[in-house]
Amino acid sequence: MTLTLLFAAGGDAWTDYAPHLDAAIAEEGLDARLVTATDAPGEIDYIIYAPDSGLRDFAPYTRLKAVMSLWAGVESIVDTPSLTVPLCRMVDPGLTEGMVEWVTGHVLRHHLGMDRHILGQDGVWRNEVVPPLARHRPVGLLGLGALGAAVGRALVGLGFPVHGWSRSAKRLDGITCRHGADGLAATLAEAQILVSLLPATAATDGLLDADALALLPKGAVFINPGRGSVVDDAALLAALDAGRMDHATLDVFRTEPLPADHPFWAHPRVTVTPHIASATRPDTAAQSVIANIANHERGAPLAHQVDRSAGY
Amino acid sequence: MTLTLLFAAGGDAWTDYAPHLDAAIAEEGLDARLVTATDAPGEIDYIIYAPDSGLRDFAPYTRLKAVMSLWAGVESIVDTPSLTVPLCRMVDPGLTEGMVEWVTGHVLRHHLGMDRHILGQDGVWRNEVVPPLARHRPVGLLGLGALGAAVGRALVGLGFPVHGWSRSAKRLDGITCRHGADGLAATLAEAQILVSLLPATAATDGLLDADALALLPKGAVFINPGRGSVVDDAALLAALDAGRMDHATLDVFRTEPLPADHPFWAHPRVTVTPHIASATRPDTAAQSVIANIANHERGAPLAHQVDRSAGY
Repeated sequence: MTLTLLFAAGGDAWTDYAPHLDAAIAEEGLDARLVTATDAPGEIDYIIYAPDSGLRDFAPYTRLKAVMSLWAGVESIVDTPSLTVPLCRMVDPGLTEGMVEWVTGHVLRHHLGMDRHILGQDGVWRNEVVPPLARHRPVGLLGLGALGAAVGRALVGLGFPVHGWSRSAKRLDGITCRHGADGLAATLAEAQILVSLLPATAATDGLLDADALALLPKGAVFINPGRGSVVDDAALLAALDAGRMDHATLDVFRTEPLPADHPFWAHPRVTVTPHIASATRPDTAAQSVIANIANHERGAPLAHQVDRSAGY
Repeated sequence: MTLTLLFAAGGDAWTDYAPHLDAAIAEEGLDARLVTATDAPGEIDYIIYAPDSGLRDFAPYTRLKAVMSLWAGVESIVDTPSLTVPLCRMVDPGLTEGMVEWVTGHVLRHHLGMDRHILGQDGVWRNEVVPPLARHRPVGLLGLGALGAAVGRALVGLGFPVHGWSRSAKRLDGITCRHGADGLAATLAEAQILVSLLPATAATDGLLDADALALLPKGAVFINPGRGSVVDDAALLAALDAGRMDHATLDVFRTEPLPADHPFWAHPRVTVTPHIASATRPDTAAQSVIANIANHERGAPLAHQVDRSAGY
């Protein structure tokens, strides 16, 4: 029997996702039709869901088999009493790839000094300054989870010496791995380019304060695609103003969107990007959701099910 | 007996090279002293040489074993009658690494749309535009020699589908390789980002003319770290002005330095870089030269010897 999939998400999500969901349904050979609204909730088999849809009462969906979240974070929905069927969070392979591309691109941008050329097309041929090779440009990498490990592999592949740090001890091929307070100091001291992929936790809040930033080599660059709470904004601005640090490229902030009057926007040594490093891609996300439904229909357990007691 | 090495090169070369040559001599355990001038040419064992030294008469160097060029191109010295000892051209492993880093960096820059953020810090949070993943961004790569192959490997490693083209048929892992006129048309038709590493030859002069550029997908970007003669400048500017192409990042030109009044400098869709993609690095170049001398002193034949009859 043909499945009915309700797409419930706000904004432009339908425009972004519909063609990719249709393509994924065809590719999986799934007998299903997509709807964006329904007068007959009892006929819906799966809901492809984002919290900004406003949908909170799942009681009328009497035939519902599961809710497939389009968002990685499910904190706003996990405790909904009427949601009694399995809830699956988004695990998008494209997210890791996109993060690797964003970090590698910005590391190379700073390594090569690209901004000098992008911002300085003045007709003067200056070829005296040749950057060192990547193998002579140590990169510090804070956070060695799935994203950090993938980023580290890509940077090692390009020749950068990567000095990794994480809360607990890790081992990763080709990466010098340290942990703990002493390990952090040693990692910062070597990082001409520092990348943070640390999560937002009580332990990482303000970890990169004035004392920590002072350990970086003079002229260091900070790239933050992780979480904004990791860095003390005022200390970062002070280090940039003093010329101790050369640049910060920041994708995440304590308040997002970053307010228009925040000094990061206007600072000549700061590049703000609008939380795009880890975007979910409609194409790979749609494939991931539809493959999960199709596998479930073929008898497999649902992947990426949220553990309600843990909350994620 | 201690060898005497004469360093003969103009400009700031001595400042750039001296520490790296000293380090390489120590690392190789070579019993040698470096001089920058001599009153006793008959005591010189090797000359580390660049044409801008002005040195052309090698006759007084009666004990000379070889001349080690610091430049890859030896066309200005190869026919010197008094140069009868072996002449070795520069082969710098750092040159390939630097080229890979420059090309990969600029491919990622255009792939990610970085300029939008580097040039447009206006306080407005725009996170709607998410670039496709690298795996959905085909790159065309013209020229599959040592540099092209290394660049292709790096781009494949980051997930880009790479469509390579060369004059004669090649096979490279992970790269779709084409050749000949039909192969060129097919390669251009798929290249959202086009990279040229073609050499300057009669066959490549003006290869990328208006007809060839018209084959690129709309919005394509051209990155040229190879040779400037490959592209028809006027045709490239016309394609950019018409909005058929999005950007050109050019490191090489028909005239270098690029004259200050050349339209490339002021064009908003062109980034000029001053022939830096393939710079010889003093550190790796010094290692290469000293290792060659040390191996020769241990009885091995000199590497990278110029074939005088072929001229390179």
